Amino acid sequence: MKINGKAYRTIWVNEDQWSVTVIDQTKLPHEFETLRIASADDAARAIKDMIVRGAPLIGATAAYGLCMALREDASDAALEAAYAMLAETRPTAINLKWALDAMVDAVKPLPARERVAAAYARAAKICDDDVEICRRIGVQGVGLIRAIADKKSGGVVNVLTHCNAGWLACVDWGTALAPIYMAHDEGIKIHVWVDETRPRNQGASLTAFELGRHGVAHTIIPDNAGGHLMQHGQVDMCIVGTDRTTARGDVANKIGTYLKALAAHDNGVPFYVALPYTTIDWTLDDGVAEIPIEQRSAREVTHMTGRTDKGAIETIEISAPGSGAANYGFDVTPARLVTGLITERGVTPATREGLLSLYPEHKNAG
Amino acid sequence: MKINGKAYRTIWVNEDQWSVTVIDQTKLPHEFETLRIASADDAARAIKDMIVRGAPLIGATAAYGLCMALREDASDAALEAAYAMLAETRPTAINLKWALDAMVDAVKPLPARERVAAAYARAAKICDDDVEICRRIGVQGVGLIRAIADKKSGGVVNVLTHCNAGWLACVDWGTALAPIYMAHDEGIKIHVWVDETRPRNQGASLTAFELGRHGVAHTIIPDNAGGHLMQHGQVDMCIVGTDRTTARGDVANKIGTYLKALAAHDNGVPFYVALPYTTIDWTLDDGVAEIPIEQRSAREVTHMTGRTDKGAIETIEISAPGSGAANYGFDVTPARLVTGLITERGVTPATREGLLSLYPEHKNAG
Repeated sequence: MKINGKAYRTIWVNEDQWSVTVIDQTKLPHEFETLRIASADDAARAIKDMIVRGAPLIGATAAYGLCMALREDASDAALEAAYAMLAETRPTAINLKWALDAMVDAVKPLPARERVAAAYARAAKICDDDVEICRRIGVQGVGLIRAIADKKSGGVVNVLTHCNAGWLACVDWGTALAPIYMAHDEGIKIHVWVDETRPRNQGASLTAFELGRHGVAHTIIPDNAGGHLMQHGQVDMCIVGTDRTTARGDVANKIGTYLKALAAHDNGVPFYVALPYTTIDWTLDDGVAEIPIEQRSAREVTHMTGRTDKGAIETIEISAPGSGAANYGFDVTPARLVTGLITERGVTPATREGLLSLYPEHKNAG
Repeated sequence: MKINGKAYRTIWVNEDQWSVTVIDQTKLPHEFETLRIASADDAARAIKDMIVRGAPLIGATAAYGLCMALREDASDAALEAAYAMLAETRPTAINLKWALDAMVDAVKPLPARERVAAAYARAAKICDDDVEICRRIGVQGVGLIRAIADKKSGGVVNVLTHCNAGWLACVDWGTALAPIYMAHDEGIKIHVWVDETRPRNQGASLTAFELGRHGVAHTIIPDNAGGHLMQHGQVDMCIVGTDRTTARGDVANKIGTYLKALAAHDNGVPFYVALPYTTIDWTLDDGVAEIPIEQRSAREVTHMTGRTDKGAIETIEISAPGSGAANYGFDVTPARLVTGLITERGVTPATREGLLSLYPEHKNAG
């Protein structure tokens, strides 16, 4: 994606060829700042504090974190310690674990002196693969949007999305937003309803920022508004991302996704989930019962940061002082509410059979 | 309700016996300020700017606005002009119209010289009646909470509410919160999940403030969280208010209510709506098709006001600059998702038959 005319990925290796730089997503949309990550600790902090977020980008950042840990100490013990530290930074997104496992698989068989180079090569491949996977998700998903545009005889296609599953959540392109970018680029009239996505407002701050830079028409709405819009025919389809998808197609995504899926179901609006294969957890079935849901600080709910009219960045308390708050990061949308899964290999019903038809190599998993 | 040990209603006539004072609800929870209203224009502005809000309190404020208009000019023409100006301040809440109609009924038959005194008497009665009606809603609703407490053998009853339908929305007591206050007062262990209720955060700022002052255990949650809590058995019942209820039991309430009703239905959680008879619009049936939904300023979505750590009140932009926002004030929950209506006359299914069983005088309406 281009920011101010310059092409960016969300993470890249610096000229020193070992440290990496990321975009500080906690500063968006008001400031575009980058942050250098120079150790596994830095990487863990960046993930925990949500300087980087989005399942694929978390995986890529953790992969480079492991590279830097090995650079300091390439022993098995150091590898295991770094793995454990990075794996616990965010409990819900499964491709954090996937990326770390891929790294271990690549370096563990090697003698210590070969591990660092192999690790950097594997991390680079994780990033390159993610870009290609997201591009393919876009190619698969744009057909769904095109079909609606055709049915509406070229009328505007209104898509609702929740949170940010765009290029900022990945290395480039995005998952849920990839089909939207491609539809826009091929001239389909498209308008996106952007759920602001409290408490951290990734929709209003990141998705709106992305869509605006790419010139895609969009409108920010409170998370409360989607049901009303669907009742009144203002939403043609929903597309969201996922942080973990079970073998039968339940999806854990940003808190509030389930409510939109219920409204879509109640109003006959197609509800699609876009995902790379790396977010599928073949070991789980029942997402509500089995996927661990991260709980975060109450302060993310009771306080907000933004820019005053004078340009200063301020943090304010927005709720009654003394009242506590709960902050669950994700909820689970049961497969029965999902119209289809858009993966890099194709679009399929959210069922075990559907997923296995695309990933037959997992027939004996779970 | 008591604030800092002093009993308050939300609106009262001053010692001059003609102007009224209200609590400035835009300043809560950070500051407790009152505002004197000395003309119909003042009253209209207070309603439009949400210095006062909540269907019953809007009605009471409009009633006093009409009194002040008559005080300046008690002619039919002035009465009609003030009615029109006050009626258009908020389009969704029907008891604004109810209160204005009640005022007109009381003063229209009288000669001009008698109208002012009659108007003030009628407005006072609207307020007194509202207090008594809300008290009765509490008495009717507390039985539902008690039944759950009994079933849980005295375990904590978890109630979810959306927006503010407490004493700040009424003259005293509240509608949805009245049963909660009474349950708390009679020693039932109760805990309230308070939807923050974006964009104006009436839950986090007003409901949390009210419950805190009364000593009721509560936790603020983002509007996105209720579905997750219900999936995990953390909600025993929902109680919300309504700004307009159709003859068949559809309810218009703060935007996002519909999403919670869907989640309650999907998880077998009872979903109750508390209302005084003044919010029933016997002329309407299909709420989604027929109830006008107010649209408000985008700035309410893109900006927030709160208190910095240093104690200053600041307004900040919280979304991507240049992105537009839509701001629908209400949505409609179809009667099929409502377990029961709690009115001052009893609890009834959300059906035409149910409502008519409590209000047989409307058998020929609609």
